[in-house]
Amino acid sequence: MPAAPLRKIIDRAGHEADGRAGRAFALAVQILIVVSLVAFSIETLPNLPEAARRALHVMEIVIVAAFTAEYALRVIAAERKAKFIFSFYGLIDLAAILPFYLAAAGVDLRALRAFRLLRVARILKLVAYDRAASRFRRALRIAREELILFGGVAAVMLYLSAAGIYYFENAAQPDAFQSVFHSLWWALVTLTTVGYGDMVPVTFGGRALTFVMLTTGIGIVAVPTGLIASALSRVRAEDAAGAAKKKKKKK
Amino acid sequence: MPAAPLRKIIDRAGHEADGRAGRAFALAVQILIVVSLVAFSIETLPNLPEAARRALHVMEIVIVAAFTAEYALRVIAAERKAKFIFSFYGLIDLAAILPFYLAAAGVDLRALRAFRLLRVARILKLVAYDRAASRFRRALRIAREELILFGGVAAVMLYLSAAGIYYFENAAQPDAFQSVFHSLWWALVTLTTVGYGDMVPVTFGGRALTFVMLTTGIGIVAVPTGLIASALSRVRAEDAAGAAKKKKKKK
Amino acid sequence: MPAAPLRKIIDRAGHEADGRAGRAFALAVQILIVVSLVAFSIETLPNLPEAARRALHVMEIVIVAAFTAEYALRVIAAERKAKFIFSFYGLIDLAAILPFYLAAAGVDLRALRAFRLLRVARILKLVAYDRAASRFRRALRIAREELILFGGVAAVMLYLSAAGIYYFENAAQPDAFQSVFHSLWWALVTLTTVGYGDMVPVTFGGRALTFVMLTTGIGIVAVPTGLIASALSRVRAEDAAGAAKKKKKKK
Amino acid sequence: MPAAPLRKIIDRAGHEADGRAGRAFALAVQILIVVSLVAFSIETLPNLPEAARRALHVMEIVIVAAFTAEYALRVIAAERKAKFIFSFYGLIDLAAILPFYLAAAGVDLRALRAFRLLRVARILKLVAYDRAASRFRRALRIAREELILFGGVAAVMLYLSAAGIYYFENAAQPDAFQSVFHSLWWALVTLTTVGYGDMVPVTFGGRALTFVMLTTGIGIVAVPTGLIASALSRVRAEDAAGAAKKKKKKK
Repeated sequence: MPAAPLRKIIDRAGHEADGRAGRAFALAVQILIVVSLVAFSIETLPNLPEAARRALHVMEIVIVAAFTAEYALRVIAAERKAKFIFSFYGLIDLAAILPFYLAAAGVDLRALRAFRLLRVARILKLVAYDRAASRFRRALRIAREELILFGGVAAVMLYLSAAGIYYFENAAQPDAFQSVFHSLWWALVTLTTVGYGDMVPVTFGGRALTFVMLTTGIGIVAVPTGLIASALSRVRAEDAAGAAKKKKKKK
Repeated sequence: MPAAPLRKIIDRAGHEADGRAGRAFALAVQILIVVSLVAFSIETLPNLPEAARRALHVMEIVIVAAFTAEYALRVIAAERKAKFIFSFYGLIDLAAILPFYLAAAGVDLRALRAFRLLRVARILKLVAYDRAASRFRRALRIAREELILFGGVAAVMLYLSAAGIYYFENAAQPDAFQSVFHSLWWALVTLTTVGYGDMVPVTFGGRALTFVMLTTGIGIVAVPTGLIASALSRVRAEDAAGAAKKKKKKK
Repeated sequence: MPAAPLRKIIDRAGHEADGRAGRAFALAVQILIVVSLVAFSIETLPNLPEAARRALHVMEIVIVAAFTAEYALRVIAAERKAKFIFSFYGLIDLAAILPFYLAAAGVDLRALRAFRLLRVARILKLVAYDRAASRFRRALRIAREELILFGGVAAVMLYLSAAGIYYFENAAQPDAFQSVFHSLWWALVTLTTVGYGDMVPVTFGGRALTFVMLTTGIGIVAVPTGLIASALSRVRAEDAAGAAKKKKKKK
Repeated sequence: MPAAPLRKIIDRAGHEADGRAGRAFALAVQILIVVSLVAFSIETLPNLPEAARRALHVMEIVIVAAFTAEYALRVIAAERKAKFIFSFYGLIDLAAILPFYLAAAGVDLRALRAFRLLRVARILKLVAYDRAASRFRRALRIAREELILFGGVAAVMLYLSAAGIYYFENAAQPDAFQSVFHSLWWALVTLTTVGYGDMVPVTFGGRALTFVMLTTGIGIVAVPTGLIASALSRVRAEDAAGAAKKKKKKK
C-alpha cells in the first residue's frame, strides 16, 4: 500500500511543505491553479479568435486531467478518506473538476458557470498556511468584541442612512432613490467613500443627512482597521518577547 | 401586583439579560424590530403588487400590536413610570407606535413619515449594551480634546475650502458652484474622499486649491480615526492588566 | 490712560480668557465672526431677493463697524502697537475690514473679492489656543522626519504617475489627458482615492500603471496619518506620566 | 590625475554631502533635475506657441549638456568605473541623456518618449538618502510577513471580486463588464475606494457581492498601512531608547 509515503509528500504539501518532494508538489499545484485562472479569464474575453478558443479548450482538458489526478492522489493519501472528501478543501477540489465532467455528460452549461467560479476559491490555499496568518487570527480574536460592536453600529448606520436618504430624496429623484433597498446601495457606496456618483443627493435635507452621516460614519467604518493593526502589532511584540525569553533560558 | 417579577424579566432584558426569560424576551423584541424594518423597507418598493401591499398592512397591524403590548408591559414594569415614559427609549417606543394610531384617527399620513423613521432608531438598542461599548466610551473620553480640536479644524477647513472653490469656480461653472453653500457640499464630498464627481473643479486656481486642501486635509479627517483606535487599544490593555492583577491577589 | 485694564480684558480674550470680562469679550468676537461668515455665504446665493440683499448690506455695515471697533481696541490695548499691527492676526484683522472701506472709496470691487476671503481666515482663531493643539504640534515635531520623507515620496509618485499616464493615455484621450499638468490633476484625484471620474484611464497600459500606482501609493498617502496618530498617543501618554509623577512628589 | 579630490566632491554629493563643495554640487544637480522636469511637462502642453517651443528646445540642449558633463564627471570620479556605469543610477543617468543624442542621430522620436520618461526617475535621488528612509526600510522588514500575507489576500480578493462581478454583471452590462480583465479594473477601483463611476454594478447579485467585498475588503487594503505606521513608531522608539542609553554610558 503506497498511501503512507504518498501521504508524507501530499499532506505536507498542503500544510507545511517540509520535505523537498512535498514542496515541489505544492508549487506545481499552485502554478496549475494560477494557469487555470488565467485561462478562465482569457475565455471570458469577447471576440476571441476561434484558434485561441480551441487552444483554451485543449488547455482546459489538460488542467482538468491534472486536477483530477491531484484529487485522486489526495483521496488515496488521506488517512480518513471520508473526512477529506467532505472537508472544505475536499469539496472545493471536487467542485473544480465536476463541472467539466457534467458538461461532457450533457448537463446544461449555463448553470454550471456558478460552480466554475468556485475553482477560483482554490487560490485561497496559496495564502492559507502561514505564520502571519495565525498571528492575524489571534489579532482578530483580541479585537473580536470591538469588531462586532463596530460591525453592528455600521449596519445600523447603513440602514438609518438608507431610510433617511430615501425619505429626503425619493420625491426629488424617484428613479435613483426608488426604495430603501436602492438607497442602501447609495449608503454603502458613500460610507465606504467609494462614491461612484451613480446616485447623488440633491436636496438640502439629503445633503445635510450625508454631512452628518459622513462625519460620524467614516470613523465607524475605519476604526476597526486601526484596531486590527494595533492588535497585530501587539501579537507580534508578544511573540518577539516570547522568543527572547526562550533564548535566555537556553543560555 | 405583578410588576416586580415582570420588572425582573423586562428590565434585565433591556440591560444585561441575565435570566433565561429575560433573554428570550429581549431576543423576541429584537427579532420583531428587524422584521418591522424589513417590512418598512419592502413597503417603499415601487410597483408593489396589491396582494403584497395588503399582506404588509396585516403585518403592520400585528407588529404595532406587539409593540403596543411591549410598551404597556414596560410601563407597568417600570418602578418610576413617568421617568421611563419621558426617557429617550421610552419616547422612541411611543414614537414607533403612535403614527399608526394617529393615521387610524385620520391624521394626514404624509407628515407622519418622518415619525415613522424614528422606529428605525430602535435598532440602536441592539448594540447599546455591551462591554465593548463601554470601552469605546472610555476611549472617546481619553481622545476627547483631540477629537474636538480636529473636529474644529475640519470645520474650518471645510468652510475655507468651500469659500475658496466658490471664488475660483463660480465664474467658470456658475451652475455647479452656485454659492458657498453649494461649494460646501463639494468640500464635504472631496475632503472625505467620497468624490461623487457631480461637482469637479476645472480652473487652474480651483485645482491648485484642491491640491493644497487634499494634501493637508485628508489627515485632519483621518487622524481622529487613528486616535480612537489607539485609545481603544490602551483601554483594552488597562482592562487586561487590571484583570491580571485581580487574579494575582486572589492567589 | 485706560490701556492697562483694557489690555487685561482683550489680551486674555485672545489667549487664555481667564477673567470673566475677557471671556465674554472673546465669545462676542467669535459669535460675530461666525455671523459675518454666514452673511458672506448667504450673499453668494444667486437669485437673492432685493430685500435680503439690502438687509445683508446693513448687516455688513454693522459687522464692519464692530470689527473696526475691535481692531481699534486691540491696537490701543497692545503694549507694543507696531508689533501687533504687523503680526499675523493683526494683518488679518485689518484685511477683514479694509476691503469695505476701499470699496466705499471707489476701488474696483472685483479685485477685492480675494481680500474678502481672508476674513474667513479669522475663524482659525476659534481653534488656535488649546492644550490639544500644543500636543498636536509636539506630535508633528516627533514625526517630522517621516512626514518630510513621505511628503517627498508622495510628490515624486504624483509626478511619475502623471508623466506615466500622460504617456499611455494621451493618444487615446487627447482631450482629457492633454498634458502632464492635466495628468497631475488625475494623479492627485486618484492617489487620494477621491476618484471624481472626470478623467479615467482606458488603455491597458494606463490601467496597469494605475494598478501599480494605487497598490504602492495609497500607503504613502495614508501612512503619515497613522504616524501622527501614534505620535499623538505617545505625547498624551508622556503628559499623563508627567502629571502622575508630579502628584506623587506632592505627596 | 584629478580623480581623487573630484571623487571627494561628487561621491559625497551622491551620498551624504559632507563637504561644502559636495553639497553645492548636489544641490545644483537637484535643481537641474527639477528644471528639466518642469520643461518636460511644459513641452507636453498642446497649442504651445512656436517661440516657447524654441526656447524649450534651447533649454533642453543646455540641460542635456549639463547632464552629460555630470555623467562624465561621475565616471571619471568613480573608483570602479564599470561598476558605476552598470549601477542603477549609472544606467538612469545614461538613459536621461541618451535619447537626445539618438534623436540627433536620426533615430525615430516616438519610440524614444518611453526612454525619456526614465529621466523622471532621477527625482528619486532627491529622497533616497535619509535617516527616515532607513527607519522606513527597517519598519518594512518588521512588518514584512504581514505585508506579504495581506498582499496575497488582497490579490485573491481582487481576482474573486472580478470573477464574481463578471458573473453577475456581464449579462446586464456586456459593454462595461466585457471580461474578467475588464472586471479586474472595476475591482481595483472599488476596493481602493477610488470609485470613478465608469463601471457600476446594477444587478442585485452584483450589488450584494460589492457589499460583501467592501465590508471585508477595505480592511485588507487599509490594515497594512496601519501596520507600517505602528512598526515605524516602534523603530523610532528603539532608536530613541538606544540614543538615551548611549548618553547615560558617556556619563
